[in-house]
Amino acid sequence: MTEVKVSPLAPEAFGVVSTVAGVRLATAAAGIRYSGRDDVMLAELPSGSSVAGVFTRSLCTAAPVDWCKHALATTSGRGRAIIVNSGNANAFTGAAGYRAVQHTAESVGRALGAPAHEVLVASTGVIGEDLPTGRIDGALGGLVAGLAPADPSAWEAAAAAIGTTDTFPKGASAPVAGTSAHVAGIAKGSGMIAPDMATMLAFVFTDLAVDPQTARECLAASVERSFNRITVDSDTSTSDTVLLAATGTSGQPATLHLADLRAALDAVTLDLAHQIVRDGEGATKFVAVTVTGAADDAAAEAIARTVADSPLVKTALAASDANWGRIVAAVGKAGQRADRDRLSIWIGDEQCADGGLPRPGYSEQRATEHLLGDEIELWVDVGVGDGEAAVWTCDLTHGYIDINAGYRT
Amino acid sequence: MTEVKVSPLAPEAFGVVSTVAGVRLATAAAGIRYSGRDDVMLAELPSGSSVAGVFTRSLCTAAPVDWCKHALATTSGRGRAIIVNSGNANAFTGAAGYRAVQHTAESVGRALGAPAHEVLVASTGVIGEDLPTGRIDGALGGLVAGLAPADPSAWEAAAAAIGTTDTFPKGASAPVAGTSAHVAGIAKGSGMIAPDMATMLAFVFTDLAVDPQTARECLAASVERSFNRITVDSDTSTSDTVLLAATGTSGQPATLHLADLRAALDAVTLDLAHQIVRDGEGATKFVAVTVTGAADDAAAEAIARTVADSPLVKTALAASDANWGRIVAAVGKAGQRADRDRLSIWIGDEQCADGGLPRPGYSEQRATEHLLGDEIELWVDVGVGDGEAAVWTCDLTHGYIDINAGYRT
Repeated sequence: MTEVKVSPLAPEAFGVVSTVAGVRLATAAAGIRYSGRDDVMLAELPSGSSVAGVFTRSLCTAAPVDWCKHALATTSGRGRAIIVNSGNANAFTGAAGYRAVQHTAESVGRALGAPAHEVLVASTGVIGEDLPTGRIDGALGGLVAGLAPADPSAWEAAAAAIGTTDTFPKGASAPVAGTSAHVAGIAKGSGMIAPDMATMLAFVFTDLAVDPQTARECLAASVERSFNRITVDSDTSTSDTVLLAATGTSGQPATLHLADLRAALDAVTLDLAHQIVRDGEGATKFVAVTVTGAADDAAAEAIARTVADSPLVKTALAASDANWGRIVAAVGKAGQRADRDRLSIWIGDEQCADGGLPRPGYSEQRATEHLLGDEIELWVDVGVGDGEAAVWTCDLTHGYIDINAGYRT
Repeated sequence: MTEVKVSPLAPEAFGVVSTVAGVRLATAAAGIRYSGRDDVMLAELPSGSSVAGVFTRSLCTAAPVDWCKHALATTSGRGRAIIVNSGNANAFTGAAGYRAVQHTAESVGRALGAPAHEVLVASTGVIGEDLPTGRIDGALGGLVAGLAPADPSAWEAAAAAIGTTDTFPKGASAPVAGTSAHVAGIAKGSGMIAPDMATMLAFVFTDLAVDPQTARECLAASVERSFNRITVDSDTSTSDTVLLAATGTSGQPATLHLADLRAALDAVTLDLAHQIVRDGEGATKFVAVTVTGAADDAAAEAIARTVADSPLVKTALAASDANWGRIVAAVGKAGQRADRDRLSIWIGDEQCADGGLPRPGYSEQRATEHLLGDEIELWVDVGVGDGEAAVWTCDLTHGYIDINAGYRT
């Protein structure tokens, strides 16, 4: 097995993630699969907190995803706790898997004096193995005793506990302008599901008072522009989960600060999403693909995603090869309206193609210089309308193959 | 650049491809991009021959694709010649590219005494560079003088001339039962477009008498079950072209032998399609993905394609890792109806999963033994209906990265 090194695209250090009033965090080493590290995270929320969720579009969902959907529907978006384990995804585990997640929710609820339906659960790790619920039960006393305010050091410990193949913990926060409240969150993920220990999870919190309906709307819109705009390998997990919890502890209602809440939430989700890309398996370059001139924004997104998912584009980027013909091919296969004879392509600031032809005076050397860096910008204008979108990805390298070929043994 | 070695999945030798009466072939070295090899192929057809075409679904089509569509529409499916060059795709070349293909068709037509619209043209190679038509013109006299019956050695030379990154020439033939006629064809392709020198081209011929409408119907149906069921890297070329030419020289009408024509045509297109997969860039394993139990055949194909395109599945296969959790995840993301709790999965003859759970008694060792071979069969039953489909692919290895990262320089 390849030695795990921190991604070359990682931030220098875990940033200072702001305290969110009302949230208490704890982590513990339950020994579910890993040894020598924490693998369970508990977040406690005050009574009356709102919780909204966005889940994987996979049709083969893991049991905790089914549970969270059921729980949020039952409570109409209220929650008292979030418990997350790493090392076992509790996916492809049938009815026993659902009983396991229900058991965990009941245990946590009992320990905190909350109904089971107000306990959200997420699991990430191997697929097809029964979740050892006894180990989580065994860790629960220590977790509850260890609950402490969600301050910068607690966020970092929580982010580390939920990681699997992640090479660095991921956290971000932003103040809600005009209020004393903050939005803060943690995430994990280093491939869409790759290898099968990985999954995208994110837990975002605010001390603003947000009603469940508003929380759902804000979260859905924010996820659409962040976590749904990244792709490492085009693979989707059975367990992808994003939760937003609002404690209301700051006393300020979101209804008076909605635009500011949205801005802070978007900043946090986009930051976390970009950190996931920066931890993409084998990634050596962070790549922004921007498409303009599409029929509409959805068409632009589809084209940008096709470029970002193209193995040929991604291998060319890994080699700093200004092979824009592969971008043309990706645009062509996206199935969206594009005018071949009005297509323009930029690599960094260098325009390669203009009006469907190689641009006279195009400097491959200048394009290559941009590609030799580790922050890459590709821009394609498809010449038919006003739609635009950006998608973020990373390059495809030997490291990806190393990590994913024969990982388990 | 990596040294090019013949794919480990290549046939031992170019098979004996049957003569097709009426077809004459020639090849020449025009020096378009390569040196020391033939890079132009001319196929001459007798007057009155039918030609049908199926082309890339890319919206950024190359000029020769536009020309062929226009020519076949103009002649209602008649043709006298097919000329193919390798080394330059004449793609992303704007109006000049279209003039270049028209010029080539006119030159060939003049040399053979045929209207330009009865000359079909295909090009494969680099994108965004002007086609050096003078070099094709210069080779034309020799090509016409060298035309000879399409016998086994002529087929092999023709197959070699149209190749780019191919590591072996691809040909196949089958008799049309109950007649003296044959179906024979050649193809090139070693990635969907990967690297940008590659594209899927296939030219199939029969000496049965087939009217243009029947030729179109038979070809479309056959391509749907062969070339459209393979995937190397999910990338689509700007130039993909399949042509079927029927000379009628055998004197037997297709209308009396339609089922036999279809059977022979399907055998040839599937054989050629599988040869393309066997030349997949970096491929070390030939993989058949069969899906049953889907809502309908189209749903089954979509699920099979998602499994076949998953980088995680393909890297696991490269490592002979029986990581069926990745197959579950791929099924889940396909967006087609599947019953997670009735899902069954086989690797070779070994059933891994049954009814949405790991099968009791599943032997990972037996599954791994199958995966250590180079002919892999995956079978997934999704438990909701009668739809079924097969898709063929190869594994994803370091070789793919080697070939595609920085190929051009």
